Amino acid sequence: MTFTVLVAPSGFKESLSANEVADCIGEGVLRAFPQAKILKAPMVDGGEGFTEALVAATGGTMHRLTVTGPVGDPVQSFFGFLGGAPVPTAVIEMAAAAGLRLVPRDRRNPCLTSSYGVGELIKAALDAGAQRILHGCGDSGINDGGAGMAQALGVRFLDDAGRPLAAGGAELARLATIDMSDRDPRLETVRIDAAVNWHNMLLGPRGVARVFGPQKGATPEQVELLAQAMDNYAAHIVAKTGFDVGAAEGAGASGGLGAAVLGLLSGKLHPRYEIVMNYLELDSLIGRANLVITAEGSLDGQTPFGKVPAEVGQRAKAAGLPVIALAGTIGKGVTLNFEHGIDAFASILKRPCSLDEAIGAASKLLVRAAEDASRMILVGMRLNQASVVPRNQNLAPRAKGSPRAAA
Amino acid sequence: MTFTVLVAPSGFKESLSANEVADCIGEGVLRAFPQAKILKAPMVDGGEGFTEALVAATGGTMHRLTVTGPVGDPVQSFFGFLGGAPVPTAVIEMAAAAGLRLVPRDRRNPCLTSSYGVGELIKAALDAGAQRILHGCGDSGINDGGAGMAQALGVRFLDDAGRPLAAGGAELARLATIDMSDRDPRLETVRIDAAVNWHNMLLGPRGVARVFGPQKGATPEQVELLAQAMDNYAAHIVAKTGFDVGAAEGAGASGGLGAAVLGLLSGKLHPRYEIVMNYLELDSLIGRANLVITAEGSLDGQTPFGKVPAEVGQRAKAAGLPVIALAGTIGKGVTLNFEHGIDAFASILKRPCSLDEAIGAASKLLVRAAEDASRMILVGMRLNQASVVPRNQNLAPRAKGSPRAAA
Repeated sequence: MTFTVLVAPSGFKESLSANEVADCIGEGVLRAFPQAKILKAPMVDGGEGFTEALVAATGGTMHRLTVTGPVGDPVQSFFGFLGGAPVPTAVIEMAAAAGLRLVPRDRRNPCLTSSYGVGELIKAALDAGAQRILHGCGDSGINDGGAGMAQALGVRFLDDAGRPLAAGGAELARLATIDMSDRDPRLETVRIDAAVNWHNMLLGPRGVARVFGPQKGATPEQVELLAQAMDNYAAHIVAKTGFDVGAAEGAGASGGLGAAVLGLLSGKLHPRYEIVMNYLELDSLIGRANLVITAEGSLDGQTPFGKVPAEVGQRAKAAGLPVIALAGTIGKGVTLNFEHGIDAFASILKRPCSLDEAIGAASKLLVRAAEDASRMILVGMRLNQASVVPRNQNLAPRAKGSPRAAA
Repeated sequence: MTFTVLVAPSGFKESLSANEVADCIGEGVLRAFPQAKILKAPMVDGGEGFTEALVAATGGTMHRLTVTGPVGDPVQSFFGFLGGAPVPTAVIEMAAAAGLRLVPRDRRNPCLTSSYGVGELIKAALDAGAQRILHGCGDSGINDGGAGMAQALGVRFLDDAGRPLAAGGAELARLATIDMSDRDPRLETVRIDAAVNWHNMLLGPRGVARVFGPQKGATPEQVELLAQAMDNYAAHIVAKTGFDVGAAEGAGASGGLGAAVLGLLSGKLHPRYEIVMNYLELDSLIGRANLVITAEGSLDGQTPFGKVPAEVGQRAKAAGLPVIALAGTIGKGVTLNFEHGIDAFASILKRPCSLDEAIGAASKLLVRAAEDASRMILVGMRLNQASVVPRNQNLAPRAKGSPRAAA
């Protein structure tokens, strides 16, 4: 039986995509285990890299097109189709049409930026025959509640004089009527599944405007204006469609775009890693592996709360597999991860250095860290377990969160 | 059979003694393997810590006394006796009487500093009944060729007018006669074994004055004066005793003190880790262990050239044991260590930081690094080797210096 290693990492923020991280780790593992089989499942959330990861994992196709960007200028964008899906299934990511990266720094005003281009991506996917759409949310540069996206698909937003609203979240404070009579009829039958951060709410003190507005460039006054606009927007969606988007988990995702997916496009929201884990067939990959390696830029006491290593760790542990985690930084409370399926971890750092140096050398450091951890594991494999630890003895106390000894 | 881990580290320069490093690693290993048996063999060279390590390892005794320091002021010093030795065996380290640390920064002039106090330590050991002396060299602050040490034991150094020379290496340029008639007669029968850096020569371009003079505070002119003084000193020793100290390996150790041990005290020189390895019974400890953990402040391409991890690695490998190395810094060329018995290594660093921060937190980082490496090994132990790698297959290609698979 071939020694099979499943590499299922997150991306390293500001440094490496999940795909790049997976490639680096795979390369390092092969240096220590040249005959190993490497399976890769780069764990992306709904943000940047979502489309590429799912298309690559399924052998699908990428499609390039130009759409309206978040500040109204055209931008080069893309969507994909899964390979081998039972029904034609498109993959889009909102960041490819309305991501923060597409908003020039001097025009970062979420009162004005629009998700219109995201609707154009959906329209193009429908034109190309999609019967199902996987819709990634994350890394957005807008706060328009997805109204722009809905507009591109025929939904009209009118003020109290019956005039169409202009682009941008602030306009929604003046929203008086939602007119869905010209909505693209294909939305009746297509199934849209969006990957969102489940904790993002649309309204209130933890709502999207107040939590994310400032990092998208809003002043305190603009944050309050946007918060009021979202209140008004949500009230009109509830009145029109019955969906209580103000209460729905994930409706605040991507500048409130989750609310429009749910209330105006008849889509469904899913916790952010659920889709990628299903489509990458993580559980099936786990079933074929002997060892799982995950990774994240930082591994610490926050990791168990929805970060990739813990998600991967728990699924792998349910299948009885050993799991190790590599990280740029090992932080406070990291031992909590022992209770969430991580058996061992290692930092990629090799010498004193600054954060910028570490980020700059991340890919090289990661390859080596994967090699070094593999060699350490190899030492363990050479120690004949039966001769040094009775087979029915726990290798470490459960109370400290250590893995159960192999039976 | 209890899982037994031998911890045989070097000290971490400017940070932790070899004893402290061994304690930290032992603590970390026990966190992952609570039932493991830890054997400790802190690897000191002949420098600071030599006495303590040998006395502690054998359950011997320490003796405190005041001797003449390197600049002439009295200093608190010590020597020890081994526990359980067949003949009364003292342990001294020259650094305890003439170490660089004992020379105030504003008086670092190796033309003047003297090893006289080292002779006083030997005298005290003889007075206490020593029939054998283990004599550690390293970390010296002198360049007097051990003449001061010999003077304290009755050897007289005279100028061409028959007047005694003053203290310090520069005076030896005026040496005309060595008078051994009053040498302590106990030196005839006591056996002195000195641990020295085998690569330290007394004379020539790689001689002690030119290589070590500057770091002991010598100006370029003083370096040349000392080099000439050592030439003259060596010529007189050869003429008087027949020992060609200019050609002897290790004679340049500790400011040339090796030459005096050899030529004037009838002692023997040994490569620096040989004594400690014999007295700590390293090979016997290796024979009782399942796994060896070594450590050094920096692990890199220089490590195989006489540093502790390579020495330990080679001995452990000869016994077929897996060896891992922990280090503060992993540097260039580190993979060369795979050819010298090291199977895997890990840095103690967990996040970007400065060298000073790393040094400041070294003991805490080291405990955790030992735990983390142990957990990684534990992952390997859980992977049933037989099921994933054929037993007769090399786990990694020998060409890359990987360890041979366990047969």
